[in-house]
Amino acid sequence: MPLKTPPGYSPLNEATLRSYLAAIPEAAATLGGGPAQWTVNEVGDGNLNLVFLIEGPNGGICVKQALPYVRLVGEGWPMTLERAFFEQEYIRRHAPQVGSQMPRLYRYDPALYAIVMERLSPHIIMRHGMIRGQRYPAFAGQISDFLAKSLFFTSDLALSADEKKAMMAAFAANTELCKITEDLIFTEPYIVAERNRWTKPQLDGIAAEFRADIELKLAVSRLKWKFLTSAEALIHGDLHTGSVMVTETDMRVIDAEFSFVGPMGFDTGAVLGNLLLSYFSQEGHAGAGDTRDDYEAWILETMEQVWIGFAAKFLDLWRSQARGDAYPVALFADAAGQKALSAEREAFMARLFQDTLGFAAAKMIRRILGLAHVIDLEHIKDPDLRARCESRALRLARELMVNTARYQKIGDVSAAARATRKS
Amino acid sequence: MPLKTPPGYSPLNEATLRSYLAAIPEAAATLGGGPAQWTVNEVGDGNLNLVFLIEGPNGGICVKQALPYVRLVGEGWPMTLERAFFEQEYIRRHAPQVGSQMPRLYRYDPALYAIVMERLSPHIIMRHGMIRGQRYPAFAGQISDFLAKSLFFTSDLALSADEKKAMMAAFAANTELCKITEDLIFTEPYIVAERNRWTKPQLDGIAAEFRADIELKLAVSRLKWKFLTSAEALIHGDLHTGSVMVTETDMRVIDAEFSFVGPMGFDTGAVLGNLLLSYFSQEGHAGAGDTRDDYEAWILETMEQVWIGFAAKFLDLWRSQARGDAYPVALFADAAGQKALSAEREAFMARLFQDTLGFAAAKMIRRILGLAHVIDLEHIKDPDLRARCESRALRLARELMVNTARYQKIGDVSAAARATRKS
Repeated sequence: MPLKTPPGYSPLNEATLRSYLAAIPEAAATLGGGPAQWTVNEVGDGNLNLVFLIEGPNGGICVKQALPYVRLVGEGWPMTLERAFFEQEYIRRHAPQVGSQMPRLYRYDPALYAIVMERLSPHIIMRHGMIRGQRYPAFAGQISDFLAKSLFFTSDLALSADEKKAMMAAFAANTELCKITEDLIFTEPYIVAERNRWTKPQLDGIAAEFRADIELKLAVSRLKWKFLTSAEALIHGDLHTGSVMVTETDMRVIDAEFSFVGPMGFDTGAVLGNLLLSYFSQEGHAGAGDTRDDYEAWILETMEQVWIGFAAKFLDLWRSQARGDAYPVALFADAAGQKALSAEREAFMARLFQDTLGFAAAKMIRRILGLAHVIDLEHIKDPDLRARCESRALRLARELMVNTARYQKIGDVSAAARATRKS
Repeated sequence: MPLKTPPGYSPLNEATLRSYLAAIPEAAATLGGGPAQWTVNEVGDGNLNLVFLIEGPNGGICVKQALPYVRLVGEGWPMTLERAFFEQEYIRRHAPQVGSQMPRLYRYDPALYAIVMERLSPHIIMRHGMIRGQRYPAFAGQISDFLAKSLFFTSDLALSADEKKAMMAAFAANTELCKITEDLIFTEPYIVAERNRWTKPQLDGIAAEFRADIELKLAVSRLKWKFLTSAEALIHGDLHTGSVMVTETDMRVIDAEFSFVGPMGFDTGAVLGNLLLSYFSQEGHAGAGDTRDDYEAWILETMEQVWIGFAAKFLDLWRSQARGDAYPVALFADAAGQKALSAEREAFMARLFQDTLGFAAAKMIRRILGLAHVIDLEHIKDPDLRARCESRALRLARELMVNTARYQKIGDVSAAARATRKS
């Protein structure tokens, strides 16, 4: 029995898509020519949606449409169509500050739950490039910019309390997608759960060890509490290297359907955690004459630059654009106040760094012991080699999550990663 | 020019109230007889609303109606009528757990923004009783019960994430009332602000000192950040001794129009802070043969019992009724897990105690240096005596807010209060 969908909804296909786009002047103009000249490809290789790329004589368009279920699993896992609304709403709200770092939005169709947007070209999914050992010199600068602006400008440091609360209320309805995070990241990897999978039998031992690791389970539960209660900023909610498209000079953030008002460290942690996963996967992609040693070094440098750049830019914004209700400027107007506030900002960033490491670790563990894995590791064919890479990632993640306070600088994290890599 | 109000809204008066209540069967039955036999008194001595007490041959009814402005100030300070919605919504949501500790709700009228509820008798506002040195032996047990249940059952420890997010979204609209708290508690007492007032000239010095006190301003700004971002439970938001009605054997919580999903410590802190304000005010109400020494001791004992009772009951609920998404029970099912979780719960309460002290201190300071004062202190006629009481309260509050970590047990707080009282 097909799942019920609202009146007016039906999945697009090649034929309906042509007439649909022909009726959207901006899209038709971007494509050029007439519908008969357009080529349509459905490329949704993700887990959830239909994704069409349409090419015309002048250019391309991307249409992303939600299905009423999780595509990876099928109709047995129904999933709200409303996720398309939250994705476009995230783009819309962040566009004034970081619009150039996301696909341009042409139209959102609330009946079809379809987003008509810029077709990014020649961008590729960053994760794919990293598996091939490709460097992205612009990435650290651009993602740190994106993180700083998207988190700062939707926080109480920049918004009035009523603007913030309205945003929080709108995104509080994104419960189904948040629930995926709550279950798959913060809970299931730490218990016996049907959906868990890992490289067997090589990781059976460490999986059992983690399920019995009380300190780790307390640490992840504290992080879950934070995820459930810390309404700090409008976060992307799924900011891994598969949600980033890159060229050598450009970076765009996509796939914001998990967005909600949550802890800032969840986004910064997603970026760092996925860079670390890539780092530990590199040995599995090395070949004759391609040791990946330099590339590993580049990844850690990039990770350092991401955090350092983010922290510097976030602090700059706080110093120059603090118009929000938190830390009211009127309280710290004089020289002594400025100096004290400056120290407080550093303490704020130190706390955020700790959150970041905890969430980064949670993201790493779930990708190895939980349901959804990453191809950085999955594409390593030799299971022993893959398991060795995965074990190292798990060991560092466990250390970062349980002994977070030992890591006060991003350099401490790269040093630990290097040491773990050699183990 | 009168403020615009929605169609269907008009302030009730004695005549309209009679016919209004006659049409509500449960209210009419509670009153008994006919409308001509009912006496109506408008008793709104608060700052915001119309409050009518209606007495009939069988019993009484209370009707609370929002006005489109702050009554204390007049039409120059417009204020959303929706506050009545949030008050009744708070009662409705908490009723399954703590209904017997609030007035019973007969009807909410969304057009009139009027709440028809139980008329509490012979209850009086607790603050009034405490000014007279009246003891309330049932209070500590009942308020600690109310706090534990109302906070636990609306937190992620008891609710599923979707239930919690729906509640958060509903109350996120209560921005105007939250804004009053944000401005009047966390900001204005620490700057030169038109609405501030204090006992002059006696407190001019300490008011200036506080405005220059960087550590204090940082501490209150951290608390404000928490107020803006910590969505822990559906809190009352204004739980001072003027929002509590008591007899020797009963206690009811009223006036929940400031409710929203916020930090638990804001409610527990409100109770503790207002008990401390009463404590420091007692010298001002002592008279010949009425030293209030024993009463002061009773207040501190009560304060200790409130926290100790709250913590014990909250922990009991967590142990026995944790069905929420936070700290999932499945992670801590075995003996080692149970033991570790038990320690974690203690750590959670220790953190909540710190929040409580910070918020208690913020509530104390705003009542002495900000716009809205408490009659515990205002009714002390001799300004020198009043200022002495107020200074002590300010000194302790400053200490609790800045050096919070020095106070790990509620007994530490009473000891500091006693020492400050003698100073």
